[in-house]
Amino acid sequence: MTEHSLWRFSRALHRAINERHTDDLAAVIDDNVEWAVFGPIDMFPFLGTRRGKDEVLDVCRQIADNVRVHRFERESMMLGDESGAAMMRYSLTALDSNRPISLRLAQFASFKNGLLTSMRVVVDTFDLVEQTLGHPIHLPKIA
Amino acid sequence: MTEHSLWRFSRALHRAINERHTDDLAAVIDDNVEWAVFGPIDMFPFLGTRRGKDEVLDVCRQIADNVRVHRFERESMMLGDESGAAMMRYSLTALDSNRPISLRLAQFASFKNGLLTSMRVVVDTFDLVEQTLGHPIHLPKIA
Repeated sequence: MTEHSLWRFSRALHRAINERHTDDLAAVIDDNVEWAVFGPIDMFPFLGTRRGKDEVLDVCRQIADNVRVHRFERESMMLGDESGAAMMRYSLTALDSNRPISLRLAQFASFKNGLLTSMRVVVDTFDLVEQTLGHPIHLPKIA
Repeated sequence: MTEHSLWRFSRALHRAINERHTDDLAAVIDDNVEWAVFGPIDMFPFLGTRRGKDEVLDVCRQIADNVRVHRFERESMMLGDESGAAMMRYSLTALDSNRPISLRLAQFASFKNGLLTSMRVVVDTFDLVEQTLGHPIHLPKIA
């Protein structure tokens, strides 16, 4: 039984972020990959949409400039033949402030012949913003 | 071929929200369901974790007090035998302000004998907060 493409991609991504080594990542991404991590791009320019392998490798280098991954845990998980979805909790460090960040996100990945063709990620962005700022944002109660 | 439990749950949930009719929803939820919609509960008291059918029905009534669902689209989708994950985009109206809200979220659902036993939802919460406030929150650029 061969390893699922999602595990290979995930390992290559974490290596690209923590070791700034993108060769493994380049080997598991389709040339025409579609990539979207939804979130406030004014604050985090490395979020947003990218198209094609070069743009995705470039944005992963930008992510590597900004965070280090300490731990991650998959809280929910589904695997298909050439797809995978996971709800994950990451423990990160923001490199500029040296601040710990605990991040929850959901990723949906599609593969073709083992190569990533699509990645879409939803992040609990308000929590991310508050942790990055280092203080809560005052919100009115609406309900 | 019988309908997937996720479709039946989804239809019952939308009916509960838009028509304030929770009988269908009660019929598809396990007594010991675990429920978590991650987000700022100070602003949105109907987010957060709930446990058991009564608490989940109650929180769905609170959601119904606050929003109406106009449209939803599943942008990514995975189905297992007794599980399902979806990345969705909702068009809502916030009832107190009559303001339109466009919301992206990811849901992971598990079922047992057709009944919902677990639901975990990640929401693009910063976008939700800004739309609910009706104005952008100023953010510094960090990268």
